Amino acid sequence: MHRSKLECLLPFWNDLDTFEKEQLLKGCFETTYRKGLMLHRSEQQCSGIMVILNGQLRTYIVSDEGREVTLFRVYQDNVCVFSATCLMDAIVFDVMIDAVEDTNVIIIPSAVLSPLIKKYPKIEAYLYKTATERFSDVIWTMQQILFLSADKRVAIFLWDEITWTNCMTISVTHDEIARYIGSAREVVTKVLKYFVQEGIVTLERGKIQVTDKKLLKKYL
Amino acid sequence: MHRSKLECLLPFWNDLDTFEKEQLLKGCFETTYRKGLMLHRSEQQCSGIMVILNGQLRTYIVSDEGREVTLFRVYQDNVCVFSATCLMDAIVFDVMIDAVEDTNVIIIPSAVLSPLIKKYPKIEAYLYKTATERFSDVIWTMQQILFLSADKRVAIFLWDEITWTNCMTISVTHDEIARYIGSAREVVTKVLKYFVQEGIVTLERGKIQVTDKKLLKKYL
Repeated sequence: MHRSKLECLLPFWNDLDTFEKEQLLKGCFETTYRKGLMLHRSEQQCSGIMVILNGQLRTYIVSDEGREVTLFRVYQDNVCVFSATCLMDAIVFDVMIDAVEDTNVIIIPSAVLSPLIKKYPKIEAYLYKTATERFSDVIWTMQQILFLSADKRVAIFLWDEITWTNCMTISVTHDEIARYIGSAREVVTKVLKYFVQEGIVTLERGKIQVTDKKLLKKYL
Repeated sequence: MHRSKLECLLPFWNDLDTFEKEQLLKGCFETTYRKGLMLHRSEQQCSGIMVILNGQLRTYIVSDEGREVTLFRVYQDNVCVFSATCLMDAIVFDVMIDAVEDTNVIIIPSAVLSPLIKKYPKIEAYLYKTATERFSDVIWTMQQILFLSADKRVAIFLWDEITWTNCMTISVTHDEIARYIGSAREVVTKVLKYFVQEGIVTLERGKIQVTDKKLLKKYL
């Protein structure tokens, strides 16, 4: 099962010879991160690249005062390369990664990839290309934070959640939304209260129910 | 002269054969961008990668309302790859690039690089690696904007300028500083007035004189 995943998701797979493929398969392993677990917190840690089987990981930065800003999330059938920054010396910033929900991953350890990178420039190209795709996500996040009003950012968050889960109820606290959109809890609470008045959502402890999808869309 | 620059700055140069090196040299050309010229404004434009001979380029994003945020700058003996985004499909955002001062570059046109990229994965790795280095700059910029107070950001800007130019007088308007640090002109003016009171700088039309470097350093 790992073989077919890797074959399908790693564009350099077919360049490897039979022995290298076997070594890579032998070296990788599956693991589960429970919801909320912080699985990566600095450059020093370098477990390897992670193929997401299901669930999702969130990459974020934290200020000295503990304020978090989510940079991007990585979903099923995508590969997280920021847990292997020791393989990429062009990355000189620390990111944190945690599991947004229970998440199964295949880890390809850095020690297994490292000798292959030296032999195949294609692997290096793949790692940096994947990092650059996330770069695009970060620019988008940055544009949101810098240029969009808070109500629009909250609306986009709610819209993405109901579209992603296909469910009109979102289990999330105001504090969590603030961290996802890079704002303060007080601002999120203010925006949500306004959305309640407008009849777009109803609020319960730890839950938000979207009651008028059409109206919400107007804020995107 | 171009040959020695490219040989020194392009890590894939020695992988090319003699014919390819000649083709590349024949295909590239030198040009000068006058201070303030916007030389790249969207994905549609794809002139090629630029080797900076002297001067500096600034890459930035612009909101719908015209607010600018500088993402990073590229200096002498560095290579700007964001003027060749058509070669990198992982980049899906539009950036603007302009010349901060009169800037001489060698342009290697996308059409010249494109066939070589197909043959040499190393070139693709180089382009994405260079993009990822800029990614690190952007994360730093983002941390500044999100997590640092305006006075610290202005102080860092002034410090970088006097260090870079080795001159205590900086020719810059408040509006330009605001754009560099991703803030508003009014905020910059307020911070500078405070710095005047503290005896750190004196202000003249379009110029800032740093009078107490030691004191300025305290704000970094």
